[in-house]
Amino acid sequence: MKEQDRISSAVIKRLPRYRRYLEDLLKKNVDRISSNELSILMGYTASQIRQDLNNFGGFGQQGYGYNIRELYNQIGIILGLDQEYRMIIVGSGNLGQAIANYTHYYKEGFKVSAMFDINPRLIGLRINDIEVMDYERIGEFLEANHIDIGIICTNKDSAQEVANKLTEGKVNGIWNFAPVDLDVGDSIALENAHLSDSLYSLTYHIIRKR
Amino acid sequence: MKEQDRISSAVIKRLPRYRRYLEDLLKKNVDRISSNELSILMGYTASQIRQDLNNFGGFGQQGYGYNIRELYNQIGIILGLDQEYRMIIVGSGNLGQAIANYTHYYKEGFKVSAMFDINPRLIGLRINDIEVMDYERIGEFLEANHIDIGIICTNKDSAQEVANKLTEGKVNGIWNFAPVDLDVGDSIALENAHLSDSLYSLTYHIIRKR
Repeated sequence: MKEQDRISSAVIKRLPRYRRYLEDLLKKNVDRISSNELSILMGYTASQIRQDLNNFGGFGQQGYGYNIRELYNQIGIILGLDQEYRMIIVGSGNLGQAIANYTHYYKEGFKVSAMFDINPRLIGLRINDIEVMDYERIGEFLEANHIDIGIICTNKDSAQEVANKLTEGKVNGIWNFAPVDLDVGDSIALENAHLSDSLYSLTYHIIRKR
Repeated sequence: MKEQDRISSAVIKRLPRYRRYLEDLLKKNVDRISSNELSILMGYTASQIRQDLNNFGGFGQQGYGYNIRELYNQIGIILGLDQEYRMIIVGSGNLGQAIANYTHYYKEGFKVSAMFDINPRLIGLRINDIEVMDYERIGEFLEANHIDIGIICTNKDSAQEVANKLTEGKVNGIWNFAPVDLDVGDSIALENAHLSDSLYSLTYHIIRKR
């Protein structure tokens, strides 16, 4: 996997979007598409698209465009979507429950194995058939089960402590919804979904448009 | 508001993060901070920080560092957080409910006025004291009430139709959680929170670390 050193995070962030467009085209039974046509659909320049996809070896054939099925599959492999991920959700309030119920993910090979919380009113509940366990037990759970992804849906004050527990429990990645930046070791992949940052970016643009 | 033309979206995306760190410092009763100290905290280089904040007039004083309270307030004003926003949520499933319950936002001046859904089992419910209304009534609701932000939490197939309704109803901005890119007019600010894109960026990094 040598390409990781030279691919910018901006390109990586664009790949899921390429994949979404390709998925839609596949559903419409389109077989091939040129970078120009993709450009019109997606709003990137054709040269940007060629540059992005060249990062991964270049799937296009001059004059023939891209084979959509092949490109879709290859992007899936690059993103690791040909693999399975066992996940746990820590913090089983509304956001944690929303993610547990977001079954869209499951067809991609994501499986929530357990949920955790400290609130006695939530412990023991089943959300989308996933048990909410006492957070006290997360250590033993992670010892007994290999978990790929820990999803943090706690408040900001608890998030670092949870990240430490997930690290001890040898997860491979953390998906953090708490509005705080976490310290995790280099061996762990970290992705933040800071919803308030996204909202404030929206308000920035709103006040400049009205 | 002339600065909008020259500020890159990367800088804008960093502003909420600056604000979070400044808020934490305020809570710890810290008054001033140098770009070097901020650099150690945030992991940006000091020169990056000076460059970012210079976009907005430069709040620092050579040798004295930044006045944290002032910088915090100014960034809030730049992001439009000194104003109030009335919002509606369209799609009142788990994600919509999670956002309705995310009361953290309210202290910033965000207020959810109503929720909408097509599902008869949800219509009439109250989530965090917000009524879930029949989606059929969204047109008349928007005619009677000025709404600043429409939040789309529907599935991807309904999202564009909802965006059209919100546009007709003269919202100023759309916060889109549906995994699809929307077409909206230039007068409307659009911010996507594509959770699956975020998850796939995580898996990209996970498979390269293990």
